[in-house]
Amino acid sequence: MSKTFLSALAAGTLFAGSALAQDVDPAHAETVKRIVDSQSFKAAVEALQKDHDRWISEVIKLTEIPAPPFKEQERAKAYMEMLKAHGLAEVEIDEEGNAMGVRKGTGGGPLVVVSAHLDTVFPEGTDVKVKRDGSRLAAPGVGDDSAGLATLLSIVRAMDAAGIKTKSDIVFLGDVGEEGPGDLRGVRYFFTKGKYKDQVKYFFSLDGGGTPTITNCGVGSKRYRVTYKGPGGHSFQAFGLVNPMTAMAQTVVEFYKIQTPANPKTTYAASVTGGGTSVNSIPNEVWMEFDMRSVDAKELDRLEKRFLAIVNQSLETENFARSTKEGSVSADIKLIGDRPAGRTDEKQDIVQIATAAFQANGIPPAYECASTDSNMPMSLGIPALTIPRTGKADRFHALDEWMDTDPQSNLTVKKIVLATVLGVAGAQ
Amino acid sequence: MSKTFLSALAAGTLFAGSALAQDVDPAHAETVKRIVDSQSFKAAVEALQKDHDRWISEVIKLTEIPAPPFKEQERAKAYMEMLKAHGLAEVEIDEEGNAMGVRKGTGGGPLVVVSAHLDTVFPEGTDVKVKRDGSRLAAPGVGDDSAGLATLLSIVRAMDAAGIKTKSDIVFLGDVGEEGPGDLRGVRYFFTKGKYKDQVKYFFSLDGGGTPTITNCGVGSKRYRVTYKGPGGHSFQAFGLVNPMTAMAQTVVEFYKIQTPANPKTTYAASVTGGGTSVNSIPNEVWMEFDMRSVDAKELDRLEKRFLAIVNQSLETENFARSTKEGSVSADIKLIGDRPAGRTDEKQDIVQIATAAFQANGIPPAYECASTDSNMPMSLGIPALTIPRTGKADRFHALDEWMDTDPQSNLTVKKIVLATVLGVAGAQ
Repeated sequence: MSKTFLSALAAGTLFAGSALAQDVDPAHAETVKRIVDSQSFKAAVEALQKDHDRWISEVIKLTEIPAPPFKEQERAKAYMEMLKAHGLAEVEIDEEGNAMGVRKGTGGGPLVVVSAHLDTVFPEGTDVKVKRDGSRLAAPGVGDDSAGLATLLSIVRAMDAAGIKTKSDIVFLGDVGEEGPGDLRGVRYFFTKGKYKDQVKYFFSLDGGGTPTITNCGVGSKRYRVTYKGPGGHSFQAFGLVNPMTAMAQTVVEFYKIQTPANPKTTYAASVTGGGTSVNSIPNEVWMEFDMRSVDAKELDRLEKRFLAIVNQSLETENFARSTKEGSVSADIKLIGDRPAGRTDEKQDIVQIATAAFQANGIPPAYECASTDSNMPMSLGIPALTIPRTGKADRFHALDEWMDTDPQSNLTVKKIVLATVLGVAGAQ
Repeated sequence: MSKTFLSALAAGTLFAGSALAQDVDPAHAETVKRIVDSQSFKAAVEALQKDHDRWISEVIKLTEIPAPPFKEQERAKAYMEMLKAHGLAEVEIDEEGNAMGVRKGTGGGPLVVVSAHLDTVFPEGTDVKVKRDGSRLAAPGVGDDSAGLATLLSIVRAMDAAGIKTKSDIVFLGDVGEEGPGDLRGVRYFFTKGKYKDQVKYFFSLDGGGTPTITNCGVGSKRYRVTYKGPGGHSFQAFGLVNPMTAMAQTVVEFYKIQTPANPKTTYAASVTGGGTSVNSIPNEVWMEFDMRSVDAKELDRLEKRFLAIVNQSLETENFARSTKEGSVSADIKLIGDRPAGRTDEKQDIVQIATAAFQANGIPPAYECASTDSNMPMSLGIPALTIPRTGKADRFHALDEWMDTDPQSNLTVKKIVLATVLGVAGAQ
């Protein structure tokens, strides 16, 4: 789960647009009630309780296999072996690096995917040794998303232990590239090129930091790195020539004149910059990174178009303001991030069932917007939710990241996840 | 000599304001004629011819002792030993690191300084081994200013060999910190704190790349590094907070609206930038370096005041445009370069004598503006010139810097330097 969501949790705030969910269609409430009251579900819960120590050991095992962006191979391989050990069918690592396997259903159900992501935000060389202090585990990536990966396996074992059958085939997926630079490459491949492309009817990502949230809205983003180029020259001798720095500055000033809607929330930032030769030189090249986000695909598209127009206008402004006799300023405009916005409507059965599963545990969930693997299926119109993976946890993306393994709150999360998955997969 | 001058030479162009000098006051022309026609001057020229190989060996020796900015100690020590070996008096390295010694006069003459600079622009670790190819020497710093340092010693030897006496005491100076980051620290110390402070009447810097130029005008500069700070925050969650990037961009856009005079030439540049946390963060801190130059101290001062006002206005603009609830944007404004502008009027005897010395060799010199050690005395009203150190040379400040040691053109340069120095020092 990207920082969008995590920062919100860390700050203890909810996004604009988040709302407490209360009303659930009686039919869906009934489905969930039937599941959680069943003997097999109770047996599964008992299995989850007994599985507690193994779950912790797997959180630790996975955390201690480094998985930096674009370097998830080792963890993917280990995860594939774990999926295989759970007796899943068609266990494999696809061309993008995603590890997956299928728990076959009895047939006739919609294809369901339950995922967690393999990658972390931490670069190679980060110390990922897990430190235990009572029920608390601390290590980079321990919560985000080792806990999700381990909870996923725990769910499989509980279903097996309780002999639960579903109509649906369920693909259990450990995907790559969820975090920043990964730009959702794992699920992008899965949904646009993978073997289950066009077949998935429901998608879950176990990637929430605390129990009371259902992420049914995907914050889309477009990120650009723009490199402004010009002829450069000596600051005194060549004074009067166009300066790419001025074009870049013009872009920022014009960009920051844009008024975006508060609802659907749409934002932008000029965030990172660099370039130049020496203090006494007109630079040849300077660059800046820009971030644009919206919970609404159309608003994001509108903002992006305006941004690109501004970049071009800035170049024109500079080329008409100063001399181009040694060359004009120009820009390389590179898309470095593209996460589609999307939304799973609160009336959709996947949201209704998840809400009922929370409520069955006495927890009224909040609906939220974030940037997660669910963005991709949401943008394709496939019902998708990001739901919790663990109880208390914090400091995601920081070196002092931690999660609490206390049995009670984590069991609650697992019960909610299991009931939700069984609700859409047609538990029998 | 800084790039201002060198780039002009490399590009084969002259600065605005450069002009061919022709008219010399007859009294000064007569002084120079008397000197160059004297038996002792002819003996000195003969000594310079015989000294050719030693001069080359000293150019090589000095070049091969690395002297990066602020790390001239080893070369300074070697140069001090060379000054000592020439029998100069009061040989020392001062507190700033300048190496110097005095050639005592017979008394009653004005104190004259003849200098070259010890430092190069090249960082530690640069390969400074000199490559010879016929009469051509190639190495970083070989011309700028090892040639000046060696020519200075050659002049001392020629005066000694010819038994030339002057009324003036002449301080021979190898100074530190002429190049970029050094910011003239060697001559700044020499003129404001050194033992000869307030006594110097004439100053020469041997720091020109080709024969036909007299630098009698010092391009002043003010350089700033401005660090813009703000509260920072998540690009989506904290959207609406002030962004230091926007304030910085505002500075650049307003700065580049300034119309500076073409004469006295006054210029500016936004040149180097950096900062920011990640593409999805409002930055806490970004920075930029700015360069301002003028051949006129008042114009430079006016430009600097306007620049500083713009920085403050940019902060205000941003603090009124977006939310300051998490903090305002502010700026650390650091002066990183301060070279005073100055001019030695063409009517001054030092210019007249130098011009006559060029003309005595059949060369009409051009008067030019540049940024050299002479800026400092010029700014204090002390007559100062930067005059050539060598014949053909180019690619200063580049790794493929070279100079030609051909005897003819280098002898001409040395004759011009010697006649000029003797003209102001009262040769007897």
